[in-house]
Amino acid sequence: MMKPSIPKGTRDFSPEEIVKRDFIFDSIKEVFRLYGYQPIETPAMENLSTLLGKYGEDGDKMIFRILNSGDFLSGLSDKELIEREPLRISAMLCERGLRYDLTVPFARFVVQHRNEIIFPFKRYQIQPVWRADRPQKGRYREFFQCDVDVIGSDSLLNEYELIKIIDDIFSRLKISVVMKINNRKILSGIAEIIGESARITDITVAIDKIDKIGIAAVNEELKSRGVSDAAIAKLQPIIHLAGDTGEKLKKLEEILSSSETGMAGIAELRTLFSYVEAGPVKGKTELDLTLARGLNYYTGAIIEVSSKDVVMGSICGGGRYDNLTGVFGMDGVSGVGVSFGADRIYDVMNQLGLFKDISNLGTQVLILNFGTSETGYALKIRDLLTDSNIRTEFYPDAVRLKKQMSYADARKIPCIIIAGDEEIRNEQVTLRIMSSGEQRKMKPADLISYLKSELSL
Amino acid sequence: MMKPSIPKGTRDFSPEEIVKRDFIFDSIKEVFRLYGYQPIETPAMENLSTLLGKYGEDGDKMIFRILNSGDFLSGLSDKELIEREPLRISAMLCERGLRYDLTVPFARFVVQHRNEIIFPFKRYQIQPVWRADRPQKGRYREFFQCDVDVIGSDSLLNEYELIKIIDDIFSRLKISVVMKINNRKILSGIAEIIGESARITDITVAIDKIDKIGIAAVNEELKSRGVSDAAIAKLQPIIHLAGDTGEKLKKLEEILSSSETGMAGIAELRTLFSYVEAGPVKGKTELDLTLARGLNYYTGAIIEVSSKDVVMGSICGGGRYDNLTGVFGMDGVSGVGVSFGADRIYDVMNQLGLFKDISNLGTQVLILNFGTSETGYALKIRDLLTDSNIRTEFYPDAVRLKKQMSYADARKIPCIIIAGDEEIRNEQVTLRIMSSGEQRKMKPADLISYLKSELSL
Repeated sequence: MMKPSIPKGTRDFSPEEIVKRDFIFDSIKEVFRLYGYQPIETPAMENLSTLLGKYGEDGDKMIFRILNSGDFLSGLSDKELIEREPLRISAMLCERGLRYDLTVPFARFVVQHRNEIIFPFKRYQIQPVWRADRPQKGRYREFFQCDVDVIGSDSLLNEYELIKIIDDIFSRLKISVVMKINNRKILSGIAEIIGESARITDITVAIDKIDKIGIAAVNEELKSRGVSDAAIAKLQPIIHLAGDTGEKLKKLEEILSSSETGMAGIAELRTLFSYVEAGPVKGKTELDLTLARGLNYYTGAIIEVSSKDVVMGSICGGGRYDNLTGVFGMDGVSGVGVSFGADRIYDVMNQLGLFKDISNLGTQVLILNFGTSETGYALKIRDLLTDSNIRTEFYPDAVRLKKQMSYADARKIPCIIIAGDEEIRNEQVTLRIMSSGEQRKMKPADLISYLKSELSL
Repeated sequence: MMKPSIPKGTRDFSPEEIVKRDFIFDSIKEVFRLYGYQPIETPAMENLSTLLGKYGEDGDKMIFRILNSGDFLSGLSDKELIEREPLRISAMLCERGLRYDLTVPFARFVVQHRNEIIFPFKRYQIQPVWRADRPQKGRYREFFQCDVDVIGSDSLLNEYELIKIIDDIFSRLKISVVMKINNRKILSGIAEIIGESARITDITVAIDKIDKIGIAAVNEELKSRGVSDAAIAKLQPIIHLAGDTGEKLKKLEEILSSSETGMAGIAELRTLFSYVEAGPVKGKTELDLTLARGLNYYTGAIIEVSSKDVVMGSICGGGRYDNLTGVFGMDGVSGVGVSFGADRIYDVMNQLGLFKDISNLGTQVLILNFGTSETGYALKIRDLLTDSNIRTEFYPDAVRLKKQMSYADARKIPCIIIAGDEEIRNEQVTLRIMSSGEQRKMKPADLISYLKSELSL
């Protein structure tokens, strides 16, 4: 018989991994709630009509489709079957697919429940998503997304609130981060004033590489993408923009003065930075004109967060979008949101040793099993401990004590209770501290206070 | 454009529903951990080779299958396509399926990770499962299961521990329950001594209906199922068994004295009840010889729990099984476990009004937005409150106050903070209690202690 396995790109989670991952999720949720965000959850399966056409052609291909139940071939003629046209056939075989992200289900949720929702609607959602991506290191076919969004409000106070939330969360997780901020309107303004509005994506992609390949190579790439020499020349002062955020904004204001969109972007950034600089996030953000994530999606602020101490790509990012729900026929819903990358945050914390102080929620006390006649006494001790919320196991089998001790060792249980016939006769227990081997006898009644005070259980 | 919807049998969860559901999950998890059970999680998708053949023919049909990516028709000839043999074709189209329960993935997990697992292995798992069942009231195609099992130990202390856990959990949830206990070996013994071992299922199904249809009808059903008159006559003293658990066991001991299996079942029950009656669960369980859930699966104890106050079927159940992992080539792994029915527990608690006292984790304070010049002051108040873990929103738009107040009302936010120019001039805020309309002015520095003490936020 073959040893069973799981599908490529998926994972089993061990108790240790779940405790760490839940520590991240719980920290994130607590902060979301602190600012008034409410949880929603949507089904793993959505109708394919909801999912298809929202993620581009490549995205559509990565959606896992669910075979219709019952007579799944009934809609297809023999001729169609033999023609083997994959899109036509899969459309007839499958009506449902697995959630590819949390944004489209959220948009669908908002439209479907529009009459019950109170706007502005502040929601968070932490659920797995599935992508038929090529599995590779750090990329999975099933992974969690943690999204937080506020929709139905244009105020830049929302952008600031999300920046504050990001700061709060990474402070709690003890990860030092760099928060980069940009604005899509400024990128549009730059493309506009150099006369290359149509090539905004090419320009941003090229600028994005400056750190890696240098200015000369960037200029060559721009040229090869068809950007005119004149435009490239006009771009140079922007590429060379230096100084702090205030200085950059001032110079940009001169450069973009003829672009209405660009100036609107600068005004937005000025307001946002004024909130940031007046509060506890002061000095923790920076303007990065090369930041362009999800360019075709975002319409205002763009935010990206990375770890200062571990090279890992972004661990959180997002921005302002217009018309979240337009594709489902509900216009005028603008919003701003960010998504936390749970897997990468997990890896950063692992690399920095940040999980070592969190409680593993494991068993704190193991009561050894001496056999039938000692069981009643042991069970009373167990009830005493669990009634005091001390995580306790009573070893279920009266096997050799050495084997029971190895179990405690392997499970990293810090305390052992020995209650053999001598202890029972004296109405005592022996407490053994595994790390030191120290043992002491005491009355059961004194056990709780001793464990709580001396061992801070 | 069509209003978007979700697949039949699936659900969106609103913030209110998630808070209630998480209250149930958190209570359950806390008790599991208290007794040393550790969480694991497995992928939503399993290989179909893992899932198929484990749930019977009807179960196999209810497994959601995932269409292979890429050229999913490549393994099928034109002839095979036109023959339209559904099992043959779906086997070629799909290699993976969605998890149907948590037991088979757990068995697969144990075999796959056998070298890392420390036995006895006490695990819990709370995850959704998917079944292509006919959707109907209270039955969904996506629903959560909460399983807790200990494997690798034959000790009846495990059965007792689970009974204690069930009692602890329903006490915390404030649901009064009836816990019924039986033992498969006793059912086998009964079938044996009446000479109908082969008809054990028929007999148990019939006996199970006594409360509903009465003894005469049960006897007739037994006859129609082919049970001999002699066997039915022998069954009567068992059907008429009355008294408390001790009395029933005593009579059963006489009746089953010639059946080794039956006597082993009685001995197991005696031991289990001796643990129960010596501890805090005393008097809360009852022997029910008609209890037979999952008969073909369980080999020892059978446990079923129902609400005393709401008619709802079982809200928790399980038992002892042998050879969990045999189907994956690993023999000799016996275990015992129970599963909590989260949806039914939710419905019971809703009907009994048991959610009314739980925290909704919603926003506690809304700071009204008076406009740009008051924003800096408001943000400082917001930081003050969130730094003290008071869940606070600052309304993002400076719209009419009436609209902001309606938002607080609709969101059931209990307190409002007014910080207009008068308050700012006097370095004060006005706190308004929404329930009473009462308003009082105070210094921001006094706000936290007032909210914490007077309003117990």
